Amino acid sequence: MSAADNLWMARALRLAEKGRYTTDPNPRVGCVLVKDGRVVGEGWHRRAGGPHAEIEALKMAGGAAHGADCYVTLEPCCHHGRTPPCTEALIGAGVRRVVAAMTDPNPRVAGGGLKRLQAAGIETVCGILETEAERLNRGFVSRQRRGRPWVTAKLAASLDGRTALASGESKWITSPQARADVHRLRAGSSAVLTGIGTVLADDPRLDARLEDGDIVQPLRVVVDSRLRMPPTARMLGLPGRTLIASCHPDPARRAALETAGAEIWAAPAREGRVDLAALLEELARREVNEVLVEAGATLNGALAIASLVDEWVLYLAPCLLGDEGRGLFQLPGIQVMADRIELRFDEVRRVGPDLRLKIQPR
Amino acid sequence: MSAADNLWMARALRLAEKGRYTTDPNPRVGCVLVKDGRVVGEGWHRRAGGPHAEIEALKMAGGAAHGADCYVTLEPCCHHGRTPPCTEALIGAGVRRVVAAMTDPNPRVAGGGLKRLQAAGIETVCGILETEAERLNRGFVSRQRRGRPWVTAKLAASLDGRTALASGESKWITSPQARADVHRLRAGSSAVLTGIGTVLADDPRLDARLEDGDIVQPLRVVVDSRLRMPPTARMLGLPGRTLIASCHPDPARRAALETAGAEIWAAPAREGRVDLAALLEELARREVNEVLVEAGATLNGALAIASLVDEWVLYLAPCLLGDEGRGLFQLPGIQVMADRIELRFDEVRRVGPDLRLKIQPR
Repeated sequence: MSAADNLWMARALRLAEKGRYTTDPNPRVGCVLVKDGRVVGEGWHRRAGGPHAEIEALKMAGGAAHGADCYVTLEPCCHHGRTPPCTEALIGAGVRRVVAAMTDPNPRVAGGGLKRLQAAGIETVCGILETEAERLNRGFVSRQRRGRPWVTAKLAASLDGRTALASGESKWITSPQARADVHRLRAGSSAVLTGIGTVLADDPRLDARLEDGDIVQPLRVVVDSRLRMPPTARMLGLPGRTLIASCHPDPARRAALETAGAEIWAAPAREGRVDLAALLEELARREVNEVLVEAGATLNGALAIASLVDEWVLYLAPCLLGDEGRGLFQLPGIQVMADRIELRFDEVRRVGPDLRLKIQPR
Repeated sequence: MSAADNLWMARALRLAEKGRYTTDPNPRVGCVLVKDGRVVGEGWHRRAGGPHAEIEALKMAGGAAHGADCYVTLEPCCHHGRTPPCTEALIGAGVRRVVAAMTDPNPRVAGGGLKRLQAAGIETVCGILETEAERLNRGFVSRQRRGRPWVTAKLAASLDGRTALASGESKWITSPQARADVHRLRAGSSAVLTGIGTVLADDPRLDARLEDGDIVQPLRVVVDSRLRMPPTARMLGLPGRTLIASCHPDPARRAALETAGAEIWAAPAREGRVDLAALLEELARREVNEVLVEAGATLNGALAIASLVDEWVLYLAPCLLGDEGRGLFQLPGIQVMADRIELRFDEVRRVGPDLRLKIQPR
């Protein structure tokens, strides 16, 4: 665990970061090959189906990989997925030592990659910058370990906690800078989740629009217990897929929506509404790593009460809308102070004239 | 305007700061006497009626004041107030040069002090760390220049902008650290202002409680248009004075409240309610420099709409109370987004587990 190990792993993490918007549903991985204190090869995973980070780095290094140290942000795979196992490529190239930031939480790997390398006589180290590596792939880790995606709920409100005027008017409370930041959140998510109330009120696009267009568009997911989604909804006309979770899917409406390009998932019900925990499990089965919730007070409240949110990102605009405006969370269960939902501030940043607060469960 | 001037003035400002909780209604002033690069005397104003900062510093310096440079955070006075003019004392002691951070906004001084010193052959400089000096005495400056106090409105809310549950329960949304910070705000204020609704709901004390007890208790002011204040209100039994502003003071209730120790001010009415701008002017006439508003949504809304607030201090607690909870601002006039009240974030700080946001008009 030398300072050099940390340094090279930090470089590998920066490479992994380059895949933030494109590797989905795969994890973001970076790799650096070092010999005699110099980088002889490096690479990162760009797209599912494309070469893994280790293969990119080996390709760049060529014969120089022989005797090199390999720094990789995730344990090399030892199974045949869409590509052959990286362990065999590293062994074949004759690397001396493999340093991994974390083991692969995928049960098909889960330490097996490092074991395979050790069996081939390669020295292995694991756990360098592990926290940072887990954070970069917290969605993938959550899906593998918990069987559900990492859930981030985005909120935008005035200083007095209002998301819209009584009329429903909400364009725009936050600044262009905050809205651009939301597009980065979307682009880094596998799915964007909203409620039918928001669709009927705002007809949102929910797509990610970045300047440098190389992104995988997130799956759009609508919680729509009674299948009220109009087949003319704007998101249905956009590139990318839309999934509607409904526990009362009327066949005629279903057919119309399917014709319009949506997929309907017949969700289990819980108190007459879509079972949100079951929905998240279904999304994990569909290889969704990270979900961004962009919803109104009803769905935000239901997710908070069910403890299904891993992080809230609240954009707070320096303006007042007044008590007649719409609120952030419907929480009918809270009658006394002891019932309140207690959280903690994780990060505070200015984004243009607004504040961005990251909040996590306590 | 040398680096040394800034350095000595910063020292004088730190001395002035020591009077934060005690000089009211006088400004906070600090003074440093410097000769041959060394401090030969320093002092600060402690209490109205007591010696000014310059006199304290001259007393410490004794004969060493002769030929010294005098750094003072406010122009020396040239009028006979409760104490003789400082200009004459400085001239008598033979100081060589007087550096002031700012002129005295008091119309009885307003540059006259510096002119008097110049006439006596003393070199004068003004404007060193002027912004910092004006900030330290922003209440005094506001009262002298605008004829009304500096108004800070303190707010405490959950992350979703709620100040209490539907039941009215509000103890405690914020942390002990945030509540201790509020006591410092109160102690630095000349008056604490609230509405009758808050008195009837919470029966607050509104006094300042600090560990180091040496403070002037702020005047308590209640906006009570129809004089509903109960003579048994807790604040009436505490040390310090209570002023009730009422535009419909029923004589019998008035007598009962006066017996209980309150003073009633017959306020002009504006749309049937206490004219808030007139109230602030009255408070300035009573030598109130800084007002801290600790009120509910009605008074907070009325002050915001009337543009009478100079700064909001919002303590944001990392918890959720839900949409049935009570809000921060009643703003009935806001119908479309263009009507919203636009502000700006001035400072963000963590106070224990909470955030403290300072917000100013844009």
